[in-house]
Amino acid sequence: MRKWNGWGWVDRGFDLHGHDDAFWSFVAQSLGRESLPSTPSLPLAAIPLPEVRVTEAVIEALRAALDVDRVCTDHEERVFHAVGKSYHDLIRLRAGKLADAPDVVVYPRDAEEVARVLEIAQTHRLAVVPFGGGSSVVGGVEATKPASFAGVLTLDTTQMDAVIDVDPESLTATVQAGIFGPELESRLQSAGYTVGHFPQSFEFSTLGGWIAARSSGQQSNKYGSFEKILVSARVVTPTGEIRTLTVPRSAAGPNLNELIAGSEGTLGVIVDATIRVHPVPRSRDIQGVLFPTFDAGATAIRRIVQAGIPVAMMRLSDADETRFYSTFASLGKAKGPARQLLGRALGATGYREAPAMMLLGMEGEPGEVRSSKRRALAIALAERGIPLGGLPGRKWYEGRFDMPYLRDPMLDRGVGVDTLETSTVWSKIGEVHREVRESLLTAMRHHGGAGFVMAHISHSYPHGASLYFTFVFPRQLDQEVDQWLGLKRAASDAIARCGATISHHHGVGTDHVPWYAADVSDAGSAMVRAARQGVDPLGIMNPGKLFSV
Amino acid sequence: MRKWNGWGWVDRGFDLHGHDDAFWSFVAQSLGRESLPSTPSLPLAAIPLPEVRVTEAVIEALRAALDVDRVCTDHEERVFHAVGKSYHDLIRLRAGKLADAPDVVVYPRDAEEVARVLEIAQTHRLAVVPFGGGSSVVGGVEATKPASFAGVLTLDTTQMDAVIDVDPESLTATVQAGIFGPELESRLQSAGYTVGHFPQSFEFSTLGGWIAARSSGQQSNKYGSFEKILVSARVVTPTGEIRTLTVPRSAAGPNLNELIAGSEGTLGVIVDATIRVHPVPRSRDIQGVLFPTFDAGATAIRRIVQAGIPVAMMRLSDADETRFYSTFASLGKAKGPARQLLGRALGATGYREAPAMMLLGMEGEPGEVRSSKRRALAIALAERGIPLGGLPGRKWYEGRFDMPYLRDPMLDRGVGVDTLETSTVWSKIGEVHREVRESLLTAMRHHGGAGFVMAHISHSYPHGASLYFTFVFPRQLDQEVDQWLGLKRAASDAIARCGATISHHHGVGTDHVPWYAADVSDAGSAMVRAARQGVDPLGIMNPGKLFSV
Repeated sequence: MRKWNGWGWVDRGFDLHGHDDAFWSFVAQSLGRESLPSTPSLPLAAIPLPEVRVTEAVIEALRAALDVDRVCTDHEERVFHAVGKSYHDLIRLRAGKLADAPDVVVYPRDAEEVARVLEIAQTHRLAVVPFGGGSSVVGGVEATKPASFAGVLTLDTTQMDAVIDVDPESLTATVQAGIFGPELESRLQSAGYTVGHFPQSFEFSTLGGWIAARSSGQQSNKYGSFEKILVSARVVTPTGEIRTLTVPRSAAGPNLNELIAGSEGTLGVIVDATIRVHPVPRSRDIQGVLFPTFDAGATAIRRIVQAGIPVAMMRLSDADETRFYSTFASLGKAKGPARQLLGRALGATGYREAPAMMLLGMEGEPGEVRSSKRRALAIALAERGIPLGGLPGRKWYEGRFDMPYLRDPMLDRGVGVDTLETSTVWSKIGEVHREVRESLLTAMRHHGGAGFVMAHISHSYPHGASLYFTFVFPRQLDQEVDQWLGLKRAASDAIARCGATISHHHGVGTDHVPWYAADVSDAGSAMVRAARQGVDPLGIMNPGKLFSV
Repeated sequence: MRKWNGWGWVDRGFDLHGHDDAFWSFVAQSLGRESLPSTPSLPLAAIPLPEVRVTEAVIEALRAALDVDRVCTDHEERVFHAVGKSYHDLIRLRAGKLADAPDVVVYPRDAEEVARVLEIAQTHRLAVVPFGGGSSVVGGVEATKPASFAGVLTLDTTQMDAVIDVDPESLTATVQAGIFGPELESRLQSAGYTVGHFPQSFEFSTLGGWIAARSSGQQSNKYGSFEKILVSARVVTPTGEIRTLTVPRSAAGPNLNELIAGSEGTLGVIVDATIRVHPVPRSRDIQGVLFPTFDAGATAIRRIVQAGIPVAMMRLSDADETRFYSTFASLGKAKGPARQLLGRALGATGYREAPAMMLLGMEGEPGEVRSSKRRALAIALAERGIPLGGLPGRKWYEGRFDMPYLRDPMLDRGVGVDTLETSTVWSKIGEVHREVRESLLTAMRHHGGAGFVMAHISHSYPHGASLYFTFVFPRQLDQEVDQWLGLKRAASDAIARCGATISHHHGVGTDHVPWYAADVSDAGSAMVRAARQGVDPLGIMNPGKLFSV
């Protein structure tokens, strides 16, 4: 059972290992408060929804196309499919202030059923929202009904979850798009293969979602972001199937895989895809390295990736994030003499003013892992990195999917937390980091009071990197959507001013629509809109995403 | 001075090192002929062209927008810009049977001038053909005039050739799109950088052409095909500028760089681009390896690329190509005792029945080159490869841009030669190689008489590879366009039947239009057409390419 109003499984939360009081005091203190209020969510049954707006005839047509039990109009299904998992989504869900909800949720099992559903939707002018894991944090699965439409149909893809074929010679697998991450990995790994794609949402996101929203996994240095993993896809559109060829590369016109990736449900429903797989790595190593400054760490990452050293992951936290995690790790622990000594030593050598913690991950064949580690650490040390060994990496790896669980108890205590991300070239990393951080800090002071901002480099390339920001603030309970919009706008404007992208891997959804045209230029935006219209002339597919309705 | 009716510089030809007679006897013999006829080209002055169809008012408007001397309507400019450099182009050029020619050729110098030209073209309903080096071998720069248009304007980009900026930290360069390969490399290399992009057309093709037609260079294993080199671009379309951001990766909707790459002039004119650069490699090594079969060599390439060994290039010739080059190399040379002994040894061990020659290239830092060579050769030897050392690689490297020069003297002697290429996944490489080869051999027997076919793997990926075919045949002088169409159709149908792509790196142009929709599906093709219409509603940009007029 997944939570309707928060992250993950109903019976799982974030484990503070008994240090709950210490943690919440620390959070309150960081926000300049004495204590935190109690701000619980409404219960599911109390969430008001609009009446179902589609006629019984439409419901009957859908039941005839699928089965009775795969066409749902009950309250729980409608609430669960109303929005995704962004901060903006959760505050509206918890307060029962949904702008809209799907009138009907359907669960097709194959491409033919999807085509039938789209035909009914076209005939009856229903907006269609493709919904995989529903983990979008940018409004990508929001049940938006344009005024001229009769209602909203959410098409849940998760019953399309078969592994169709594995080609061991070409190292590819053909898979239905509604499969969740863990199921995909479990089936492939039992045959000795992995996709290597582990975004933070891994447990609650699907293959189709990874393609549609251009997902990036934590080991993207080795496996690539999802458009690099994608070999070919089949998309059922309102006017027919888009199929791309299962070939390694083509010069036959534009690369349609790269239009399907990032389409966010606006072209049609991705029903299956052929993706690259790899032998399960026999060895894995994640090393911690402490840098005296964020700049020094960024230089190390840049040099490692530009040297072409085959690492799997490089993450670099800025000073605020490094301090946050360090405090977090030491919660409730007495500072023993060794720790005090280390602290003093770091202080004396200038590593305590603005420390930057890096995680450097390698995976693959044991010899390759050893060689990459040696080469990458040599560069890190040359940039004044202090090697911290394998412990920080093991801790991170164990908890790598857990952090989103921390948001719900924060929301229960009047604390807002949101994330956003961008990417830029290396020569502008420092500027973008500074500008976005400062814009958020300033905006917080204008909207509800001071909070804190932390950031890390999460993905790196020879020519640049992504920056991932987490910001924590006291919820302005009487106007929290306005508060969130104020923060979002400040950061997004800063990103646009710097010429960075509005999203490195979260997507556009509804939240980034105001900045999308600046990202791709007006003519570029017109071209994408026209492409969409070419296969969906009535605009039934996921309206309000990429473009406003 | 470039040749108007053949490849390359007027004063350069293919050097047969004095063995001309032996070579031409060998070619005649391979085609089952006693001797070869003389079939010279018409002289330039004898090539008939249609009257210039645009009015003096249009010419005046263009002259006002640019300069008098950058608006050309003379015979030579029109002939030079009428077609590209395909076999189909050359036979029509040489016979003076051009279907059409541009009415006017203009040379803008910047984005503003390009925009002005497009405005004039829209107003006066002129088709606009963007023309860089004009080296297309698929009809990509053909001056096609749809019936409803008043004329054809060819926009030569080669006066837009500035290197605008180099970002040494991000390893990127921003360059105007009309720059030729050698000029680009010379300017960058003087600052210590290289793009690493060396297609066979390198000397006579431009940055804009590489982007527009998805060029692949000979060292693509290291540097990537051109869409991987491209970071951002600016395209002047009839309705405004498409600009993409200079960022390493974005999830803001579809990747427009991947729509600009492969657009083949149908969206607008690429005016500048930011591309990735690399430090000039300090070391280079190309090793020859002989395999007993093409399959064994292909397995070696697959294993090397799937192991992630950082090589720069792997080429594998099939038996016919290996024999051709071997004969070619030994022309006029007496078979000394050592050579005879070697031949007998190879025969005895089964390496002479269907030999497959591989070139394995590494470049970069000396240590990296040595390590990659050691690892790759170990795999090659495990697949029964015999190492031949550095000589074959050095020979290939010296002559790597020369082969196209051989086509012109062949055409002068009644011999036709054309190439085509595709890509497929590893599990189908054998099938595609066999099917395309057999379809060509059969078609040759039906069209003008037996010829020969040779092929090589030119580019490789973890999940598949490209296959590059060269076919040589006696020209059927009375109906040579039909002959060529018959061969082209047979091979292209075979490619489509196998589910391979109609082009790995040549593009679609006019020649592959009949197979393009099968490549991308009808809905995919409709989507691309709609995207194009979104920025070019009148369809002035390069009509007849990707889609028929």
